[in-house]
Amino acid sequence: MEAGHLPAVPHLTTALTGPLKQIENTLLSEQSRIEAWFRAEWRKTPAPFYGSVDLRNAGFKLAPVDTNLFPAGFNNLNPAFIPLCVQAMQAKMEEICEVACNVLLIPEDHTRNLYYLESLSTLQEIILKAGYRVRIGSLRSDLEKEEIIELPSGRSVRLEPVIRRGQRICLEDFMPCVVVLNNDLMGGEPDILRNIDQPVVPPPGLGWSNRLKSGHFYHYHEVATEFSRLLETDPWLINPLFRNCGELDFKNREGEDCLAKNVQELLDDIQKKYDQHAIDKPPFVVVKADAGTYGMAIMSVSSVDELLSLNRKQRNKMASMKGGGGVSKFLLQEGVYTFETWGDDQDAAVAEPVVYMIDHFVVGGFYRVHTDRGPRENLNAPGMHFEPLAFHQSCNMPDRSQSPDAEPNRFYAYGVIARLALLAAARELADHKEEIDNDAGNQIAS
Amino acid sequence: MEAGHLPAVPHLTTALTGPLKQIENTLLSEQSRIEAWFRAEWRKTPAPFYGSVDLRNAGFKLAPVDTNLFPAGFNNLNPAFIPLCVQAMQAKMEEICEVACNVLLIPEDHTRNLYYLESLSTLQEIILKAGYRVRIGSLRSDLEKEEIIELPSGRSVRLEPVIRRGQRICLEDFMPCVVVLNNDLMGGEPDILRNIDQPVVPPPGLGWSNRLKSGHFYHYHEVATEFSRLLETDPWLINPLFRNCGELDFKNREGEDCLAKNVQELLDDIQKKYDQHAIDKPPFVVVKADAGTYGMAIMSVSSVDELLSLNRKQRNKMASMKGGGGVSKFLLQEGVYTFETWGDDQDAAVAEPVVYMIDHFVVGGFYRVHTDRGPRENLNAPGMHFEPLAFHQSCNMPDRSQSPDAEPNRFYAYGVIARLALLAAARELADHKEEIDNDAGNQIAS
Repeated sequence: MEAGHLPAVPHLTTALTGPLKQIENTLLSEQSRIEAWFRAEWRKTPAPFYGSVDLRNAGFKLAPVDTNLFPAGFNNLNPAFIPLCVQAMQAKMEEICEVACNVLLIPEDHTRNLYYLESLSTLQEIILKAGYRVRIGSLRSDLEKEEIIELPSGRSVRLEPVIRRGQRICLEDFMPCVVVLNNDLMGGEPDILRNIDQPVVPPPGLGWSNRLKSGHFYHYHEVATEFSRLLETDPWLINPLFRNCGELDFKNREGEDCLAKNVQELLDDIQKKYDQHAIDKPPFVVVKADAGTYGMAIMSVSSVDELLSLNRKQRNKMASMKGGGGVSKFLLQEGVYTFETWGDDQDAAVAEPVVYMIDHFVVGGFYRVHTDRGPRENLNAPGMHFEPLAFHQSCNMPDRSQSPDAEPNRFYAYGVIARLALLAAARELADHKEEIDNDAGNQIAS
Repeated sequence: MEAGHLPAVPHLTTALTGPLKQIENTLLSEQSRIEAWFRAEWRKTPAPFYGSVDLRNAGFKLAPVDTNLFPAGFNNLNPAFIPLCVQAMQAKMEEICEVACNVLLIPEDHTRNLYYLESLSTLQEIILKAGYRVRIGSLRSDLEKEEIIELPSGRSVRLEPVIRRGQRICLEDFMPCVVVLNNDLMGGEPDILRNIDQPVVPPPGLGWSNRLKSGHFYHYHEVATEFSRLLETDPWLINPLFRNCGELDFKNREGEDCLAKNVQELLDDIQKKYDQHAIDKPPFVVVKADAGTYGMAIMSVSSVDELLSLNRKQRNKMASMKGGGGVSKFLLQEGVYTFETWGDDQDAAVAEPVVYMIDHFVVGGFYRVHTDRGPRENLNAPGMHFEPLAFHQSCNMPDRSQSPDAEPNRFYAYGVIARLALLAAARELADHKEEIDNDAGNQIAS
């Protein structure tokens, strides 16, 4: 773990106020009930292979705003947590395939992004140290032979073209027993992955071409409601309100009336909750593409006027996204303020936690820290540079002898909320499996 | 993990020579085959609940000399490893009992040993952080009500008397669903634990009243042979030779001829292996009680003369042991030199690794460091004070880019050999379960 060699990580100064302290108190005092509840839920709906969850901590509210089932950013984790990742990976891989030895890791295609490749390299290392042979098979159509890319960290990644042989995929001289997807399949499920015999985790059907954020947050709403019933708290404290409206064309201003109406209604709903909890802040709404990652096509507005007065450039941005597909569906989500800051009061930077899980184990996380952004802006926006600040403690060390907002307890709270989002994803996964089973049943019947 | 706050841990200087480098090389280059082999073995014989393994590193040989299925010393682990322990505990507990919430931890009776109680407190913390309610139920017959003991660390442990209610054990106001034994039952299986409905892990039948070291090393011999066949290496490099002879009464010098004969034959066998591997050291044999822990009744001899010239005090010591039972069975084990040292060459202290596992996960370890002992003496002897030196890295981070005896790789090697010993214990456990099943079958048949 090389604990002694880590850079000292400064403490976070958070304006924790009112209701959140109540949540953190409850999470801490009810830890064993919470964990027992999670165990029962994971038995009903097993956790996805891995995931990362973006949280927002407003002091009065702690909630997930995005759940990624093909996470990048493993390189931002504290090196001291890698043994936890390795152990969790061992537990998960044993469950997936009893006899697995060879693992094929399928990455994103954008191989010019060195940050992404550093993450890929760390992920490969985790699987390797877990005791598997692991090689990287790229879906890039222009990749005809292996390509070795040197990374800033001094490591290198070797990409090799994926080959299909009958009902299996492989590399030239490497037949995997398990395929690990680290590609969110924004462009749709590639033919080469269809109907292959090897287990693919997570299943391609959970890629963004099949998945909607609104579907995720529908499940999250259910999960947060059940969880809050268990703890007898207001689910809103951990659950961002949301709405989705029909098809939208930002560029040509089609569907704008419907959008404006929904934004206004959502703002009103948030204001009601703010009034109820005596929160003296203007509500805001985040408009984001219902499918997709990487913070493209995302903006926050605090009034309908702000929405209607978007200029052409802003409209074009909302109409474009990764993969190039025209955006048509949008999610309207309650904006959650980021009141976690890092550094001095005068010069404080906004810090947003991202929590990583392998199986249902929370294995670490980091903060996105950005000095130039405000508390209601999105730190995972295109072209936006952030500094990763690794969690310097794990999320499984709650300590009742310390105050509810002491560091280990705040990290524990992050881990609980992130796992609620992961549980919502587990239910998406279960729905998806049911669909596949039904399809298979229909095919047999027809 | 509070990585930044850990004391810097000095490096170990080990005289690694000859064959071991070959072993370490092989372990590193064959890591994925080794891990696949372990996975297959754990499927056949699941790992015990937990365990600790004492290793000896002679440079030319790396071998286990004792395997404890009711480990103490958790307080000696690096605090940075506790999250690994917590995660492994979660994985194991989920497997044992799907609906478990309440855990009863049954400790050793010697409650005046504050070192032991510090370990107990750490173990309780691990189970608590894993998400269970956990209380400590003592089997001490003199304990009539709860007793709270303050510890040097500032923590405290609360012992409560165990109560039997029908086919269950409990505390006054606490009904556990799982019982975790941290008592090696040297004095025999207590009646209160017989035929209870709750799962007890590890089963009381693995206590020292039912278990023999020779049984363990018989299984270890098999495991080491299979493992070495996989890697095409000489099993002796990881396997201490051993013999057991019939009943022995040290005090009254009964059985001495047989003992002398066996010691001589074992010394001859070791000498042959030393010759084969060109090791220029006098062989020695460790004579130890075949049942029991805590290093009582143990001595090392390098000749039969040394054995025959024991004085009365030494004989009495060999005839006495923890729990007070007269010693009758002894194990003769090849002595493995300790050539790991800590500190300057002139003033180097002998250091012996102890590796901890929960389920089949290696979760950490420490070195017993003692300045006053020689390389062939036992550091876990009664009254012997040692300084614990926590491993400062985990054992699951092998790194092929470093040399085979670089620290992460030496820790990985420890973890492999310790798991081989744990696998031997898993086979003992399987034998034990078979016995119980047979007994149950016979009872039904009769």
